[in-house]
Amino acid sequence: MITKDTRFLIIGLGLIGGSYAMGLKKNGYHVEAIEINQLSIDYALKNGIIDKGSTFDLDMISQADVIIVSLYPNMSVDWIATYQKYFKPGALISDVASVKTGVVKPIQDIIRDDVEFLSSHPMAGKEVSGVKFADDTIFHSANFIILPTEKNTKEAIDSLRQMAQILGFHNISELSVEDHDAMIGFVSHLTHAIAVSLMNTNDNTHLVEYTGDSFRDLTRIAKINENLWSEVFFLNKDNLIKEIDDFTAEVENLKSKLIHNDVEGLKELFIQSTARRKLFDK
Amino acid sequence: MITKDTRFLIIGLGLIGGSYAMGLKKNGYHVEAIEINQLSIDYALKNGIIDKGSTFDLDMISQADVIIVSLYPNMSVDWIATYQKYFKPGALISDVASVKTGVVKPIQDIIRDDVEFLSSHPMAGKEVSGVKFADDTIFHSANFIILPTEKNTKEAIDSLRQMAQILGFHNISELSVEDHDAMIGFVSHLTHAIAVSLMNTNDNTHLVEYTGDSFRDLTRIAKINENLWSEVFFLNKDNLIKEIDDFTAEVENLKSKLIHNDVEGLKELFIQSTARRKLFDK
Repeated sequence: MITKDTRFLIIGLGLIGGSYAMGLKKNGYHVEAIEINQLSIDYALKNGIIDKGSTFDLDMISQADVIIVSLYPNMSVDWIATYQKYFKPGALISDVASVKTGVVKPIQDIIRDDVEFLSSHPMAGKEVSGVKFADDTIFHSANFIILPTEKNTKEAIDSLRQMAQILGFHNISELSVEDHDAMIGFVSHLTHAIAVSLMNTNDNTHLVEYTGDSFRDLTRIAKINENLWSEVFFLNKDNLIKEIDDFTAEVENLKSKLIHNDVEGLKELFIQSTARRKLFDK
Repeated sequence: MITKDTRFLIIGLGLIGGSYAMGLKKNGYHVEAIEINQLSIDYALKNGIIDKGSTFDLDMISQADVIIVSLYPNMSVDWIATYQKYFKPGALISDVASVKTGVVKPIQDIIRDDVEFLSSHPMAGKEVSGVKFADDTIFHSANFIILPTEKNTKEAIDSLRQMAQILGFHNISELSVEDHDAMIGFVSHLTHAIAVSLMNTNDNTHLVEYTGDSFRDLTRIAKINENLWSEVFFLNKDNLIKEIDDFTAEVENLKSKLIHNDVEGLKELFIQSTARRKLFDK
């Protein structure tokens, strides 16, 4: 159970870590942060996003009740492996990685028996990074996904659900690692692969003055952090390749309607996409 | 020159025709409309979008100084061929078709010598249709493209530019039919083909609760009028097939980086897409 005495520790004050801190502190919780960049700590302290911050402080780690590791996926695994010896017995640890293969099992395999790691994924973001863009309202229309394994307790699941509610997530659900990564391979990784590829199709920059909202909407997420996203793509490589193959088969299907002058076939594709998209209207 | 005495006639009170009428009338011009659906006329009259409307009125046609044919592309050709005998000598005729191959030349080939047809494309729209969604503010961030041929006069070009200014278009430019259709094949038709194909990739409707803004942005235009867009796609078939081939080659290029574990190669794609996309930020 999270109470007003719960001490939160955020590891990594980036966009997501900073937004967690902001939302928790706004709701009256005590939030500390460890972040390698002193400027980010200074900014967060000055703007009331955290109560206390440090570039390195083992006491903070050993006093925290809930630790949110808000680093890149591989670095999250390394950080927990390195510092778990300092965790307070009974502490609840979570992460924010957008891909779970290669993250959840390695951590569950090595985590101490007297603390609990329960993975989660806040499906929110922006095309910018850093604590100066922290904004807890990005969670208000977003999904919070919890990934329990056989090592997790109902109590930890309830606590993470409670934290997600405090942060104002729109929807909270539970998925297995496999189902999560298949889902995210489609709704997020494939969409980013498409946006990047569309942006890279030919040298289209001379078309700036002619592009309207459609092109801008489809390429918004082509502005992408190459270090984070290359890591994410490779961690979910098998799912992503399958989704790319399914998608390009569908594009080829549409092209074949054009080649064969199949007007009715093309209309059927439009009717199907329209019917499906209506289900996604908010 | 357009003056306050200029009589505008809109053929077809759909979303675009209705928005033209609304914008022109707001600015004090006399606007009439011919529209087969009496309910649309009643709505437009009741809401002050037009001064006068009819389902069929040859006098309206013969009194108009500027006629905007706001029908589907093929229908626009047919309408002008059928009714040009009633046009007032000196009248300026334009259209709103989003594809110009198969539209501009057929009309220029048959248009009467004592009237002038000058094609144009208002690059604006919504995922809804009909006069009840008419909204001239959709033009305020949009491009207005004029497609002069050797048959057009500077005076007509100036008049259409003036009309586009009255309607508040953000940018007004001139292109040849070939350049226009190559450009629109990329920025509009390819983007719609991608959105439709992504929406049709597998049965993804069970993922509704997990989709965030990225997926919604990429599929917004997958809600599509199958009759209009199948006509548009086939009129621009050659350009669209070329763009689809270039795009799928780029997707395959990204996939090959994954298959060959080429981390640096994938990062380069992200760096390129990010640099290009920044040029498109408004």
